[in-house]
Amino acid sequence: MNTADLGLPVDVPSTALFTDHYELTMLQAALKAGSAERRSVFEVFTRRLPEGRRYGVVAGTGRVLDAVENFRFDADVLAFLRERRIVDAQTLAWLAEYRFDGDIWGYPEGEVYFPGSPIMRVEGSFAECVLLETVILSVLNHDSAVAAAASRMSSAADGRGLIEMGARRTHELAAVAASRAAYIGGFTTTSDLAAGFRYGIPTVGTSAHAFTLVHDSERDAFRAQVQSLGRGTTLLVDTYDVTEAVRLAVEVAGPELGAVRIDSGDLLLVAHRVRQQLNELGATHTKIVVTSDLDEYAIASLRAAPVDAYGVGTQLVTGSGHPTSSMVYKLVARAESPDPQAPLVPVAKKSIGGKTSIGGRKWAARRLDEHGVADAEVVGTGPVPDELADRQLLVQLVKGGQVVAREPLDVVRDRHAAARAGLPLSATQLSRGEPVIPTEYV
Amino acid sequence: MNTADLGLPVDVPSTALFTDHYELTMLQAALKAGSAERRSVFEVFTRRLPEGRRYGVVAGTGRVLDAVENFRFDADVLAFLRERRIVDAQTLAWLAEYRFDGDIWGYPEGEVYFPGSPIMRVEGSFAECVLLETVILSVLNHDSAVAAAASRMSSAADGRGLIEMGARRTHELAAVAASRAAYIGGFTTTSDLAAGFRYGIPTVGTSAHAFTLVHDSERDAFRAQVQSLGRGTTLLVDTYDVTEAVRLAVEVAGPELGAVRIDSGDLLLVAHRVRQQLNELGATHTKIVVTSDLDEYAIASLRAAPVDAYGVGTQLVTGSGHPTSSMVYKLVARAESPDPQAPLVPVAKKSIGGKTSIGGRKWAARRLDEHGVADAEVVGTGPVPDELADRQLLVQLVKGGQVVAREPLDVVRDRHAAARAGLPLSATQLSRGEPVIPTEYV
Repeated sequence: MNTADLGLPVDVPSTALFTDHYELTMLQAALKAGSAERRSVFEVFTRRLPEGRRYGVVAGTGRVLDAVENFRFDADVLAFLRERRIVDAQTLAWLAEYRFDGDIWGYPEGEVYFPGSPIMRVEGSFAECVLLETVILSVLNHDSAVAAAASRMSSAADGRGLIEMGARRTHELAAVAASRAAYIGGFTTTSDLAAGFRYGIPTVGTSAHAFTLVHDSERDAFRAQVQSLGRGTTLLVDTYDVTEAVRLAVEVAGPELGAVRIDSGDLLLVAHRVRQQLNELGATHTKIVVTSDLDEYAIASLRAAPVDAYGVGTQLVTGSGHPTSSMVYKLVARAESPDPQAPLVPVAKKSIGGKTSIGGRKWAARRLDEHGVADAEVVGTGPVPDELADRQLLVQLVKGGQVVAREPLDVVRDRHAAARAGLPLSATQLSRGEPVIPTEYV
Repeated sequence: MNTADLGLPVDVPSTALFTDHYELTMLQAALKAGSAERRSVFEVFTRRLPEGRRYGVVAGTGRVLDAVENFRFDADVLAFLRERRIVDAQTLAWLAEYRFDGDIWGYPEGEVYFPGSPIMRVEGSFAECVLLETVILSVLNHDSAVAAAASRMSSAADGRGLIEMGARRTHELAAVAASRAAYIGGFTTTSDLAAGFRYGIPTVGTSAHAFTLVHDSERDAFRAQVQSLGRGTTLLVDTYDVTEAVRLAVEVAGPELGAVRIDSGDLLLVAHRVRQQLNELGATHTKIVVTSDLDEYAIASLRAAPVDAYGVGTQLVTGSGHPTSSMVYKLVARAESPDPQAPLVPVAKKSIGGKTSIGGRKWAARRLDEHGVADAEVVGTGPVPDELADRQLLVQLVKGGQVVAREPLDVVRDRHAAARAGLPLSATQLSRGEPVIPTEYV
């Protein structure tokens, strides 16, 4: 893949260094010992959902595919590894030729997941698979955390607009991925131009308090904005006095004013007052956007308010209390010997301290009840029972090193909406609870 | 600056799209209204520390300087803005010529900060300054959050080694910045190869459970690792039975074994047992590394344990409960008119809902008591009192668009250690409390 295809603002000439040091030292030791070529199966899963959450959201899969395609050790990277003596000459030679030639299966992006769901399965030689651990987990742990928060917020918003505006609250590139994950989870637009550029997500925005303050008066500021951006713009009305600003906004823009934005105060109260005032001024189609430290609970509490759209920043990009997803990448099976025909044997760390794993290459299916509603996440290592054969969740993403399942972001977004709609109704309750369906091992 | 100087793994051809849509629409409206060229002063500050925290840590300043230098609207970016009709032709022409020509002052990186501290001050035309808001906040909010957590952890570790190993728990590029911030906060090494490459931070790592599991026995795995990585390596001893693994580790590597790593279980108890066992086996110099879901409290609780180094992941890169720093970027003063000689007037949003700001271009100084210990953060807008003149905190970072204060990361790291040491002793208590010194406005 030409890295230019990744698009601006960031070319990633290689993702190979988004890797923990120990992946390379394990590789070196395995190459020397002859275990590097053992056929292996690694799986990504989580032992638990964040406390109180009812379901998780798979996000980042598309970015994982980009990362795997660009996982190459070029001359600069090899020189670094040599100079720092991170690995030996044999390993450097192996890395210079590296490309992932194995298979990857996974839950399609946007699907929901539960404790123990085999979210992604990576198969190939031990050497080629172990190297991908860090970058795969980075992407999935981050993006899924944001998507899960976004999904709860979009349930709470109940069809009203949701603007992702958290770029300033997180790392500048995490922000771009967060915007993508938020869109998957049901957000409608983003403030982040890089996300618009890279992923085609619609971008929005008009003005901040600084724009009002740089002018001699609020009237000058509103007039300047309307003259440049048109009457359909959104005027920010809480720099000084909200009532006076709303009056002025309609005076300057006329009743065709697109929207007003409220960024502070008691939003429920202020939104009601502003709606009434707008209606009295004849601006009955002027919308109200609110944007002050919202999370899914605040969004839900504003359901009774005349709010047309919510802008969400901090709590979205930080996963609303759960900024990471605790997914792990574990070797679950490997060949009995380096022989490529050798059968796979399940492996697992012996449990101490609660870090349980279940060995073996897994399938997963979502069992439905008589009404077509999900009632269990079924995970198994043997043959798939006939009645679950067409409810299987894993799809092939990479085959012999080639990506075979790229898809547009809107497809992913629609899949998430459908997957969530297929869960029991209590899935979208915001109150804390257990996973909305149990995971059964067979 | 040649973007190649930014180093791999990521070239940033431009940081200009790490920007909220509304910065550009404000620019467009201001250009049309004639307010774009008004001389302006923006300041970065936070209204509060995260709940219970005693001090904040400024981190990301060096990355902000890189971002400002690379803030250019190249042809691809301009084409995107044109096609999406984000701004008009006049604005596109202005952006094509953009480069920041103003001045930036700030707390030097690694300094501590408190509510109201003017952490960074950006001065120039309204147009050139307003554009930088998003990327400056992204960098500082993220990096400072991680550095603050790292600083608490390094206090708790009390001189023992601290390994940053959170790459898999956060966005792959946020991870690189997190590693840098952790180093500033007192961490000693990182697992993240990209951080080693980009910032020269020492990288470490040996093996994971997968390495043991891919071999037919723990003995085979240990032998493979020692043969390849030497007796000084760190063997992971909790895949099956810790006592048996420690016995085997010393049998395979001899008493020269570098270290053992424990990644699960009751670390206090297990560390004591393992130390005793190692001593009985003659491996008195073999170190013990622990790495299981640590935070500053767990690190502190292990002070009495024979632990030589801690590896910290999730809680470090997610800011130990506070993944962002709530810094804002506010217009605090602007010229009376577009005339370049016009005097500055202070401006501020009227407070409703607790979002208070104080207008005016600020200085800051840290006042000391008679023992040379900090006793107040003094922030003012008028002349600096004589007795505080040599305790001022802001230094010039950019002068007329040129970066004038680049510095090595070790200087920043040392500065943080010194700044923390200059605070009252209660600064490093882990218990919740108020900021360790008050902020006084004069």
